[in-house]
Amino acid sequence: MMSKTKLAVSALVILGTSAAATSGLTGDASPIYGVKIPEEYREWRLITVAHEAGKNNDIRAVLGNDIAIKAFREGTRPFPDGAIIARLAYVYQSSPENDKVFPAPQSFVAGDPTNVQFLVKDSKKYADTGGWGYGQFENGVANPSEPLIKSCFACHVKLDASKDFVFSHYSP
Amino acid sequence: MMSKTKLAVSALVILGTSAAATSGLTGDASPIYGVKIPEEYREWRLITVAHEAGKNNDIRAVLGNDIAIKAFREGTRPFPDGAIIARLAYVYQSSPENDKVFPAPQSFVAGDPTNVQFLVKDSKKYADTGGWGYGQFENGVANPSEPLIKSCFACHVKLDASKDFVFSHYSP
Repeated sequence: MMSKTKLAVSALVILGTSAAATSGLTGDASPIYGVKIPEEYREWRLITVAHEAGKNNDIRAVLGNDIAIKAFREGTRPFPDGAIIARLAYVYQSSPENDKVFPAPQSFVAGDPTNVQFLVKDSKKYADTGGWGYGQFENGVANPSEPLIKSCFACHVKLDASKDFVFSHYSP
Repeated sequence: MMSKTKLAVSALVILGTSAAATSGLTGDASPIYGVKIPEEYREWRLITVAHEAGKNNDIRAVLGNDIAIKAFREGTRPFPDGAIIARLAYVYQSSPENDKVFPAPQSFVAGDPTNVQFLVKDSKKYADTGGWGYGQFENGVANPSEPLIKSCFACHVKLDASKDFVFSHYSP
């Protein structure tokens, strides 16, 4: 397993930006919840994919650690403690490169990463927010905005209780 | 590792359909190329995501086996023999369930699976088609159409040679 330091450095290198490094931001945990980037989350298995139009205008993959994947596949709700869901979002953009090959303009692909969000299940630690802790990271750095992080649960809590506050459905 | 028989049965069960079983189709390899469903491809890591509008109207995840993922991450072209790329496509559909929670209608998600395609790199076996073999599967059964499978390479070959006939770019 990679160390957290290595992971953070790798994330910056992979994301191809030094903005986080030069801005002096060092926050590695989300406000309120203290969620950090899980080690090797990019190796996790796929839960599903989605496109959010409107203000987000992104295309996204949802990955899960072993506990989350097992729960999705077996339909276990609520999710057991230790489940972590990662949502990786990218700029939603048309692909002229693909479209010139296809019979018609039709191809939309993932551009640069926008942010990564994590949902961490800990029914005791996060008892006040349905058992889930939230974190959002840009360029490997935790977004420090408390209003932003509060908006996560404010939206997830509107879901039907049978979903355990999770939007994603597993895609076979 | 699961046996091929177990995998085929699992695929049918997971996809929630008995159409293939009742239609008498037993083809487990693509025409021309003889590509079969790789064992445990659903456990593979993510390469990227995309949306194809138009006739396909799907949202898709692209996964890779270990050899493919390593080549994508390191920028190795052409891909080494043994690389396999899996393209999992799902019906592209809006989500009223999500939209009633979000501030505006914006959410598009993966519906039922449409088909799964595999690109298998074997520079000797598939020398006539750029080193890649192709297969498309619906409900775990190889699509038997020769015109369909011929259309794969006919389209991929139009790509710039530096891409080694592969559309997808790796998303970090």
